[in-house]
Amino acid sequence: MKGREIHLASRPLGWPSEEDFCMAEVVVAEPQAGELLVRNQVMSVDPYMRGRMNEIPSYVPPFEIGRPLEGGAVGTVIESGSALFAPGDVVLHNAGWREYAVVAQDAATRVDPGLAPPSAYLGVLGMPGLTAYAGILDVAAMRPGEVVFVSAAAGAVGSAAGQIARLRGAARVVGSAGSPEKVAYLRGIGFDAAFDYHDGALRRSLRTAAPDGIDIYFDNVGGRQLEVAIGAMRPHGRVAMCGAISMYNADEPPAAPRNLALSMGKRLTLRGFLAGDFAHLRDQFIAEAAAWLREGELQYRETVAEGLQAAPRALLDMMRGHNLGKMLVRL
Amino acid sequence: MKGREIHLASRPLGWPSEEDFCMAEVVVAEPQAGELLVRNQVMSVDPYMRGRMNEIPSYVPPFEIGRPLEGGAVGTVIESGSALFAPGDVVLHNAGWREYAVVAQDAATRVDPGLAPPSAYLGVLGMPGLTAYAGILDVAAMRPGEVVFVSAAAGAVGSAAGQIARLRGAARVVGSAGSPEKVAYLRGIGFDAAFDYHDGALRRSLRTAAPDGIDIYFDNVGGRQLEVAIGAMRPHGRVAMCGAISMYNADEPPAAPRNLALSMGKRLTLRGFLAGDFAHLRDQFIAEAAAWLREGELQYRETVAEGLQAAPRALLDMMRGHNLGKMLVRL
Repeated sequence: MKGREIHLASRPLGWPSEEDFCMAEVVVAEPQAGELLVRNQVMSVDPYMRGRMNEIPSYVPPFEIGRPLEGGAVGTVIESGSALFAPGDVVLHNAGWREYAVVAQDAATRVDPGLAPPSAYLGVLGMPGLTAYAGILDVAAMRPGEVVFVSAAAGAVGSAAGQIARLRGAARVVGSAGSPEKVAYLRGIGFDAAFDYHDGALRRSLRTAAPDGIDIYFDNVGGRQLEVAIGAMRPHGRVAMCGAISMYNADEPPAAPRNLALSMGKRLTLRGFLAGDFAHLRDQFIAEAAAWLREGELQYRETVAEGLQAAPRALLDMMRGHNLGKMLVRL
Repeated sequence: MKGREIHLASRPLGWPSEEDFCMAEVVVAEPQAGELLVRNQVMSVDPYMRGRMNEIPSYVPPFEIGRPLEGGAVGTVIESGSALFAPGDVVLHNAGWREYAVVAQDAATRVDPGLAPPSAYLGVLGMPGLTAYAGILDVAAMRPGEVVFVSAAAGAVGSAAGQIARLRGAARVVGSAGSPEKVAYLRGIGFDAAFDYHDGALRRSLRTAAPDGIDIYFDNVGGRQLEVAIGAMRPHGRVAMCGAISMYNADEPPAAPRNLALSMGKRLTLRGFLAGDFAHLRDQFIAEAAAWLREGELQYRETVAEGLQAAPRALLDMMRGHNLGKMLVRL
């Protein structure tokens, strides 16, 4: 049996282009003992993937040129070499960017398609949702009554972060996003205020949205918004540093934040984190988020590209902010 | 009775000059009930005082033009309106920059001149010592076996921070300072490596001093050294942001650190702090530091200017790094 997969063709400098990827048709391996053969239904494109396109050692190894990319995917088991899984099971795993994946049983997690559609396990109930949950509740240690600002708030992580903050008792939740449509969406899902970061002076936009300052900044973008958030922080404020998408494609590192020295007088804490360190919160997160979903208290959106060949474009579109909610590719 | 005091004459932009201060002779008030009249013996000049010369609201109010500056001082009670203090008592208080101070009994702390000379209560046993202790042990939460880097390490706070790290079990303590003499001093008091931040490439200096990277950066200077420290951080590293003396006199805020986005992959925590928030550690700190002093395990130096009129120059000299250890003015 043959299947298609997408390989890294070259390492981009600055913004990637579709030429940095190529499609390959390969013979699908037989699953061995302890392995599953999975037909992928849906795959994720996420901001962190940009970092893996560089040849820089990081918390995950770089993608290799001439080899398939990787990333979260959900698919159906079509052949099982494991007693733990049966054909027909729907599983979450990390061998995306291909139609068929051979996955070790330890690297697959069965998901419940009755609880939520498979794609939700790549978004609101998956890594982005856990990132939001851990960032607000553990990294930033939000207490009820605090004011929370979230950037890239219409994305998968940001929209969950803002809603989780509200559901857990924030006094005020503010979001920034990159278009009037996204701003309207944020207001519709319960953000108390939202603004377009393209509109005029960021500092004034944030001050209007949070006139008494902020206690927590959930940072998905880095750069100038981080600087403005530091300026708006109240004493003992916390920054959960989740991402820096404004910088991933920059040729030069950015100058911001120039006001980091305010951290002493304000006693600020800035803490970078990765969802992978919060696996111990996963069960609690799934239980709580599933209940919110059932009761209609937690909203999510998906932007879906069709077909494996659309995946490189979907990654680029997501980095340009063309998505609302979770960016996915349906295979 | 008359006494001299130093007033703020004007607010500097960038580097202050001696013209921003002026000497005044005033009639010393009589102490009322609950107050003490203190003849100051020694006063402190500290980096944070530069911030109070600006008209910017901060964690402490700005100094007022035409009014005396303030700061830590130790003196002898010469008249007491309080049952808690008697003439002859040696007290620590915050009404420095003057020969005679009238101090409320609640704002004075009796010190033990038998345990250490009075000046030590402005340095190694005082606010700078507590700053170092809280920064290493609480803010950075140092564990035995970690590698610690301290900037401005020959100053009052830095030299204490490095030694406390060593005494509490750091695997390696590295310091940076601003002259060959200071570097030699650091090696003499038990730093495992030290370098002059003026010498060549900072990044290479730090890599040579700490080839396997650092777990903790005790930051007294901000700017470029913070950037280089972030680059050298191991996963889960912590920055105790204590000061940013490289920036206090800058006309423009600095661009660094441009690599803050490394905080996500490395899971770094940067935390700004003020010693004033750690009063609950004071008794424990004094007990531990006094024992170290008695056993000769904790060293300290003082640079002493003579006479109240020398205080403005002492503050400027300290900010230029002309001091070794605690900068003091003997009255």
